[in-house]
Amino acid sequence: MRIVVLAGGIGGARFLRGLKAAAPDADITVIGNTGDDIHLFGLKVCPDLDTVMYTLGGGINEEQGWGRADETFRVKEELAAYGVGPEWFGLGDRDFATHIVRTQMLSAGYPLSAVTEALCDRWQPGVRLLPMSDDRIETHVAVDEDGERRAIHFQEYWVRLRASVPAHAVVPVGADQAEPAPGVLEAIAEADVVLFPPSNPVVSVGTILAVPGIREAIAEAGVPVIGLSPIVGDAPVRGMADKVLAAVGVESTAAAVARHYGAARPLAARDGEERAGGAGLLHGWLVDSVDAGAVQEVAAAGIRCRAVPLMMTDLDATAAMAREALALAEEVRAS
Amino acid sequence: MRIVVLAGGIGGARFLRGLKAAAPDADITVIGNTGDDIHLFGLKVCPDLDTVMYTLGGGINEEQGWGRADETFRVKEELAAYGVGPEWFGLGDRDFATHIVRTQMLSAGYPLSAVTEALCDRWQPGVRLLPMSDDRIETHVAVDEDGERRAIHFQEYWVRLRASVPAHAVVPVGADQAEPAPGVLEAIAEADVVLFPPSNPVVSVGTILAVPGIREAIAEAGVPVIGLSPIVGDAPVRGMADKVLAAVGVESTAAAVARHYGAARPLAARDGEERAGGAGLLHGWLVDSVDAGAVQEVAAAGIRCRAVPLMMTDLDATAAMAREALALAEEVRAS
Repeated sequence: MRIVVLAGGIGGARFLRGLKAAAPDADITVIGNTGDDIHLFGLKVCPDLDTVMYTLGGGINEEQGWGRADETFRVKEELAAYGVGPEWFGLGDRDFATHIVRTQMLSAGYPLSAVTEALCDRWQPGVRLLPMSDDRIETHVAVDEDGERRAIHFQEYWVRLRASVPAHAVVPVGADQAEPAPGVLEAIAEADVVLFPPSNPVVSVGTILAVPGIREAIAEAGVPVIGLSPIVGDAPVRGMADKVLAAVGVESTAAAVARHYGAARPLAARDGEERAGGAGLLHGWLVDSVDAGAVQEVAAAGIRCRAVPLMMTDLDATAAMAREALALAEEVRAS
Repeated sequence: MRIVVLAGGIGGARFLRGLKAAAPDADITVIGNTGDDIHLFGLKVCPDLDTVMYTLGGGINEEQGWGRADETFRVKEELAAYGVGPEWFGLGDRDFATHIVRTQMLSAGYPLSAVTEALCDRWQPGVRLLPMSDDRIETHVAVDEDGERRAIHFQEYWVRLRASVPAHAVVPVGADQAEPAPGVLEAIAEADVVLFPPSNPVVSVGTILAVPGIREAIAEAGVPVIGLSPIVGDAPVRGMADKVLAAVGVESTAAAVARHYGAARPLAARDGEERAGGAGLLHGWLVDSVDAGAVQEVAAAGIRCRAVPLMMTDLDATAAMAREALALAEEVRAS
């Protein structure tokens, strides 16, 4: 079975660990968000790609969810002693090495996809990890600071400001001119199922879908597209997805996020007949058990919906979520 | 008193510490060798400038003579885990921060001299540290490896090979097209004395002198130029200067190195009359007490010479050396 997963950082990475456990023989391609990428200290940092790589490769700081385990901060302390910031972004010594290798390879002319493959040679994440694009895309957030509206880098909004001020707009700068990285469209075209893990629907999955060609490829793949709600009981499971959902006019509810992705055209019937249907992406949507009340609303929007436990408390719980997603995909396929 | 010092790495840095103690009120400008500079992991590393900066700024690893005190090697270990080398160059975590800041500033368009000044803002070395040039110069060494003669970077010769094979040539690649960094020629023109510390006469002081304009400026400064022999008892005090001296056809003796620098034209007499004399650089030369037998030979070459203890065993001994050098300068001036 060939599975394509659109992944952000922590939520996507943890879900992938469960998916690998649930489908150990599957051929999994991860299309990773690069809109969070940032240049710090002259180095190219790809937080979401690294979180997936470290999590699946066994190098992640488990409590924190990002960064390396057993980390130290000598380099950062020294940079601060030079008066060089930002100090609000926590790059550890081990993590720095990844960014140094990446930056050196990029400077030598390798595209990010080739660099990511080279880094994964070490980490052996057990999935094929592709950046959504080799082109530079940076998610910017419009905020009001000191009485003026200005656009700041997503990381500045998320990490420095901790999403404490309203986001008036979220723009994946550069996305409109970007192309999917080599292999992305091919992986989608050859997939048996496409999954949206409980990643941020705006700044993670949404940014991936903003790369021209990716949304269309998913809509035309003719395979089940199943999502898992990152909103449980009207609040994000982790992170501050509600802040950026508000910026795009979407309520922080499991049903509203499903409607935001939209109902997909039903799969072609077995006799090849095309069926009319939605212009969105989702065939199926999992909400948490506490949101069972939303199932009917999602179904009414044309998206098959199940309420199951969606808290990734441990690997078993996460694997169960992945199995539910794959079961829902089979249900969609058989319907 | 304005003193200009041409410095390499460890020997130059230690001498400078003594000089500061010997002449606490002097205005010292250090022209640092950048021929040892190397790009490692995409970062610009300036070993000699950093050794001077760390030594005078109190951050040096005292036993080792280079690198930072209390150093760790997490980044390097991680780079090795990625299979990225070279492993033979020991960059510590704290040291990495310096190279990251430098590289970021260079990428932003600042010349090395401005970057060095910014780094020294933190270290407050108590001297004005100037790179010999803002242009890229790399000392290459011609060696025979696997039956073929090839040119390798000086650091590869010095650190990886530990100068264990003969050096057939030493070439400061790029020097002929380089210009002295801003302030270098001005500092020499305004100096009251120019000192050559017991640095490597070929790959440290020699490389600085290879930048067009610097040798001429020293020769025309009309002030005493005093050197201290890096060779004691026919062997380098530290390092492997004998290996590169052989490459330029100079014996590893205190007298031979003095003759290699050459006797300067005597200073103008007090009545302004120019005196005929050598086309070299040195007015005075200090040899170690064990080389007292060389004094006559050096003097015969037209260079005023004294035999004094030249082992930089501690700050007092080093300050005494600096005082001897300054005393010899006064003797030259008064003669």
